[in-house]
Amino acid sequence: MNRTELISLIRRKQSFLCIGLDTDLTKVPPHLLEEEDPIFEFNKAIIDATIDLTAAYKPNLAFYECHGVKGWNSLTKTIQYINETYPGEAFTIADAKRGDIGNTSRQYAKAMFDPKSSGLDFDAVTVAPYMGEDSVKPFLEFDRKWVILLALTSNKGSDDFQMICSKETNFRLYEEVLIKSLSWGTESNMMYVVGATKAEKLEEIRQLIPDHFLLVPGVGAQGGSLEEVARYGLNKDCGLLVNSSRGIIYASSGEDFAEKAREEAMKLQEEMAAVL
Amino acid sequence: MNRTELISLIRRKQSFLCIGLDTDLTKVPPHLLEEEDPIFEFNKAIIDATIDLTAAYKPNLAFYECHGVKGWNSLTKTIQYINETYPGEAFTIADAKRGDIGNTSRQYAKAMFDPKSSGLDFDAVTVAPYMGEDSVKPFLEFDRKWVILLALTSNKGSDDFQMICSKETNFRLYEEVLIKSLSWGTESNMMYVVGATKAEKLEEIRQLIPDHFLLVPGVGAQGGSLEEVARYGLNKDCGLLVNSSRGIIYASSGEDFAEKAREEAMKLQEEMAAVL
Repeated sequence: MNRTELISLIRRKQSFLCIGLDTDLTKVPPHLLEEEDPIFEFNKAIIDATIDLTAAYKPNLAFYECHGVKGWNSLTKTIQYINETYPGEAFTIADAKRGDIGNTSRQYAKAMFDPKSSGLDFDAVTVAPYMGEDSVKPFLEFDRKWVILLALTSNKGSDDFQMICSKETNFRLYEEVLIKSLSWGTESNMMYVVGATKAEKLEEIRQLIPDHFLLVPGVGAQGGSLEEVARYGLNKDCGLLVNSSRGIIYASSGEDFAEKAREEAMKLQEEMAAVL
Repeated sequence: MNRTELISLIRRKQSFLCIGLDTDLTKVPPHLLEEEDPIFEFNKAIIDATIDLTAAYKPNLAFYECHGVKGWNSLTKTIQYINETYPGEAFTIADAKRGDIGNTSRQYAKAMFDPKSSGLDFDAVTVAPYMGEDSVKPFLEFDRKWVILLALTSNKGSDDFQMICSKETNFRLYEEVLIKSLSWGTESNMMYVVGATKAEKLEEIRQLIPDHFLLVPGVGAQGGSLEEVARYGLNKDCGLLVNSSRGIIYASSGEDFAEKAREEAMKLQEEMAAVL
């Protein structure tokens, strides 16, 4: 999906919501556990109940990998289901936080972006910047695909290294990541992760990268506020994808889980429509 | 595998070699492509030909993920083959460079370390430090398992961020990673990645972490020298695992690939025996 299509999708749905499909077998409603592939059945029901309210879906690959081959099968079916049942209706993000030497990142890019190779056809992948330019660039060689680079994350440990201030430039590490990576891609194939728990930083971040989209996790279970994120993060093209995972997909643990997920998604979508 | 067992394995085999199973279908000898699972058959032949010469095997997960479900199946069979055919004879490393918020890193840890959950039972996993302490600690909660944290990598892009010097401490980012993470684990459940292309830094690194094992990639195809790595990196317990991937597994592209891989592995093992 290219930038124009993404912006138009957001305008049409009046939503910059991203639903995190972090599907955990221990939290899936019991009646689904009798199915052959409970994770896929759960995802399918969530997708069917929320597709008109959300701009994006973001499975975190850890929740699939922990089931090995079976989990990768559930993940593949989920992405194929979205792409085949609702073509062009949702931006899909592999929350994988990959990154390796160039030769190896190329294989990861094929894993996420080349359905002939892997069966997966995501629009975007999250990438960790620690290994620098040649670990990120191979992901940018795919047409209509996106890198979402970790900048300032929403967890406590983000202070350990991301806030280190460079003696040479006086920028913090996450700012160095933003600045250096500007030359690796464009606002049409790169986004950045900025945690909602760091909303007060969004204003400064917008001065460095006014045009790029930001993927903002941490609203809901992790304590971030949608209102603050929108106030400091929105730009003329929206420029935000705000993720909620647990708050939506585990809104109920009963047979009404999809219906309750829809209600939670709608609350966020309505807040988003109001600020757009 | 615990530290005592690893050290004893290295002493017995007179080898601190790690063979990188970065198995690429485009480089596998043509006669194997007729097999149902060419990647597994290739790995099996390499393992059988080198098991007495190597301390460790390190599949890079990108080379498996790029084939989706099928690739994860080849990976699972490879690790099961090592563990069942040669129990206690090789330390196994998932070169995965994972790392996410705590709740999610826990799922990645299950993926790599809990065979009941994922079918995989690696001894160690490589982890990227960008997200800090809570992204690393869940991997350290498994008995007899190891985190191998990226410190100073062997690629060109390692200069982009890893060499940034902190205004506050005057340490570079990779040194901050070494120092801060010392309190997260011990020399019995943490190692560090230090690229062989940065061998001149090993002497300084050994002052910060005299006792930890280092996983050193970049010998061979990437240009690093085993002699230099050994001179600056060895400690009283060996303290090194030196990886070679392409130089060994693609020593020949013909039917003699396993035999030639053995010859290349033996050259390195003999050099290692001489310095031990």
